[in-house]
Amino acid sequence: MASLQQVLDTAAASQEQALERLFQLLRIKSISTDPAYADQCVAAADWLVADLNRIGIDARRCDTPGHPMVVGQSKPVKNKPVLLFYGHYDVQPVDPIALWNNDPFDPVLEDAADAQVIRARGAADDKGQLMTFVEACRAWVAVHGELPCQIRFLFEGEEESGSPSLIPFLKDNAEALTADLALVCDTGMWDATTPAICTMLRGMVGEEVIITGPDKDLHSGMYGGAAQNPIRVLSHILAGLHDENGAVTLDGFYDDVPELPEEIDQQWKQLNFDAAGFLGAVGLAEPAGEKQYSALEQIWSRPTCEFCGITGGYTGEGFKTVLPSTASCKISFRLTGQQDPQKIVDALHRYIESKLPSDCSVEYKSHGGAPATVMSIDNAAFPKAHKALSEEWESNAVYAGCGGSIPVVGDFQEHLGMESMLIGFGLDDDQIHSPNEKYNLSSFQKGINSWIRILDALTE
Amino acid sequence: MASLQQVLDTAAASQEQALERLFQLLRIKSISTDPAYADQCVAAADWLVADLNRIGIDARRCDTPGHPMVVGQSKPVKNKPVLLFYGHYDVQPVDPIALWNNDPFDPVLEDAADAQVIRARGAADDKGQLMTFVEACRAWVAVHGELPCQIRFLFEGEEESGSPSLIPFLKDNAEALTADLALVCDTGMWDATTPAICTMLRGMVGEEVIITGPDKDLHSGMYGGAAQNPIRVLSHILAGLHDENGAVTLDGFYDDVPELPEEIDQQWKQLNFDAAGFLGAVGLAEPAGEKQYSALEQIWSRPTCEFCGITGGYTGEGFKTVLPSTASCKISFRLTGQQDPQKIVDALHRYIESKLPSDCSVEYKSHGGAPATVMSIDNAAFPKAHKALSEEWESNAVYAGCGGSIPVVGDFQEHLGMESMLIGFGLDDDQIHSPNEKYNLSSFQKGINSWIRILDALTE
Repeated sequence: MASLQQVLDTAAASQEQALERLFQLLRIKSISTDPAYADQCVAAADWLVADLNRIGIDARRCDTPGHPMVVGQSKPVKNKPVLLFYGHYDVQPVDPIALWNNDPFDPVLEDAADAQVIRARGAADDKGQLMTFVEACRAWVAVHGELPCQIRFLFEGEEESGSPSLIPFLKDNAEALTADLALVCDTGMWDATTPAICTMLRGMVGEEVIITGPDKDLHSGMYGGAAQNPIRVLSHILAGLHDENGAVTLDGFYDDVPELPEEIDQQWKQLNFDAAGFLGAVGLAEPAGEKQYSALEQIWSRPTCEFCGITGGYTGEGFKTVLPSTASCKISFRLTGQQDPQKIVDALHRYIESKLPSDCSVEYKSHGGAPATVMSIDNAAFPKAHKALSEEWESNAVYAGCGGSIPVVGDFQEHLGMESMLIGFGLDDDQIHSPNEKYNLSSFQKGINSWIRILDALTE
Repeated sequence: MASLQQVLDTAAASQEQALERLFQLLRIKSISTDPAYADQCVAAADWLVADLNRIGIDARRCDTPGHPMVVGQSKPVKNKPVLLFYGHYDVQPVDPIALWNNDPFDPVLEDAADAQVIRARGAADDKGQLMTFVEACRAWVAVHGELPCQIRFLFEGEEESGSPSLIPFLKDNAEALTADLALVCDTGMWDATTPAICTMLRGMVGEEVIITGPDKDLHSGMYGGAAQNPIRVLSHILAGLHDENGAVTLDGFYDDVPELPEEIDQQWKQLNFDAAGFLGAVGLAEPAGEKQYSALEQIWSRPTCEFCGITGGYTGEGFKTVLPSTASCKISFRLTGQQDPQKIVDALHRYIESKLPSDCSVEYKSHGGAPATVMSIDNAAFPKAHKALSEEWESNAVYAGCGGSIPVVGDFQEHLGMESMLIGFGLDDDQIHSPNEKYNLSSFQKGINSWIRILDALTE
């Protein structure tokens, strides 16, 4: 424990320099979705390569058809695990720029209501998060001259724009990237004082349904009453997808959804999740999902069916008495447990076709699917990291779910056979993807300490 | 009867000149909705004033805040009715121009599949139709030196753009415009050989419904399951507006809808309406309205509830996992009998509010309403015109319904206390409002003859 404390002390002594390094990275406008910023993505990759080199990591920029990857590794350490750390250096666009109080690429340290915060685009997502790990490594190397195990690095520059180069890159560099465990720092805390390890990521299916009735738009006066209206047909279809208890009605939808493991269930109950606060923050009051499940289960462990977009007929200003030819809806399913995306799509198609009037037709556009990811806390790394996190934050860490998807976790599993552990220090109010993004200074500093403790715990 | 035949013979002898006059009017690009064509609207009005003057009508152009009206009258005739003839000289835009086979403003006489047709924008709607009446008057004056009764004229230039100047103009000129009966030539035949008098116009209510759930767009991963989805709420509301027999479920919706008068019912049954052909022409097969009513009743005499446009969430290319804040639908009701637009709107609001989850809200935008118009065939003018039409076409005329609305009829009733008789010679395949609009040469020539016979019948 003496040497762990030395590393923590070293990190504490260099907080100002660590913050200045993060600010350097935040000043680079690495917006991946806008080709105008391609040079800035290269600049961010080069900055990271240079910084990894400074702490003795053999790192290099790997160009791709899109933005470059940064890949690096430290030297092997006998009888110790090999770890891969993943983060992304690209950021979201900054529109609407008028809503920012500062230049999004001129980071500042601010006193917010109840905390000091780093304000900049990418402060939380994901430059601040990824630098917590880099700084932990730097402090460790400063004390010990080397890392406690071989650590491989993968920094991506396309996470905010669909990661088109990721899977080919993983396949082409499988040997160099595969490790005993991947560490991913792109998630959040339970709350400002309680750390979390995310062990459940919901999967997703996106399916667009286009109903056609008449073969052209009709005048609702001439044909109204006698002609099938595809908006009416679509409404019936959508209205039948949930029952009165909020459950999805598709045949076999819940077949592969397990009940929550007892240990997780008990822990979640003790969290006393503030459903009223969570919904109240967006102007709502009542959980709208399956009635027999808590709001937390509804967003973390239960599958859903949501309508993300609907359109048909005349949607401009004013009124047009049209009886439209088509109406369509983009439907998304969040999957949990072992739900199979293809089985869900098939059940949706069968359901729609059973409801379709004989003279309407339906067309589908697939927008992809991925199963849920459940990380087994039986893996010894999880209780070790759990203990390390709990010690740093002096608060019992939470095994949390995550309603969204982090595709890289599935990609690691599928293409490298590698499990991931998701630990991050973001907070719900970090405004990622929005104006005035921030990262709490405590997330940054205690995040660094957390990784130091986790590295220690995983390599004892 | 000798003098009637003389008028018909005169019309027959001047068919070429009548067609040339119509072509002159068709060459004027009087598109009312596009301010770039304002001068052309004035030119069309001036052309009509000059043409009416040529047949001894005291006519003038009356400017309005929009496009001008043309108003005229012939001299009073003792013990004869006063008639008002209404038509409109403005036309729809011609987009998409690429789909026209000819210049829309360079009229031609063409041999189509089974008839000679006049091809041009406005040929049927409404320049060709209004000139049938003017030519009838011209032939009458040529033979008799004067018209058989006082005829007043009102030609509007804003019918295709919502008639903003009409009601104020009617109010300001009530005395000059009010007649014993208005003749309106803006409707169609039953089929190419069977004339029709339209005696039922459905009314309309247009209401936009906007449902708000969360107060901002949410990420469907973060909130999906627990947060109310306004598309789901809207779908339930819309799906509940019709029962399984196609009837509208609103409280009291059918209270003021009378059954069809026996005489009309019998006549419609004898029409042997080709529902399969009517629906087949637009790619459909089954009438979608109230099951216990025929397709003809569904479009002519039964009220409806149609969805004209729906939108919510992300509707662009691809997929966005958004859980939207709002979703909205433009709903139109076609009204029949004595249905009161306000009562229908009130019932809709009560219904929606009864279905609304406690933490959603609803907002409405009214797009106006007008009750149905039913013209009583007990008025002696109707059987007279019916007989005249039947003689000209050698086919029993039909008392028809019209699914659409012709607002001027309600405006005449409300503001001038004047009933209308709707007789027109358009056909279903005239492609009004579409590229390659046409008017059958037989509609034009036998239309002129029809009006000559009707004038004779109404003034015997």
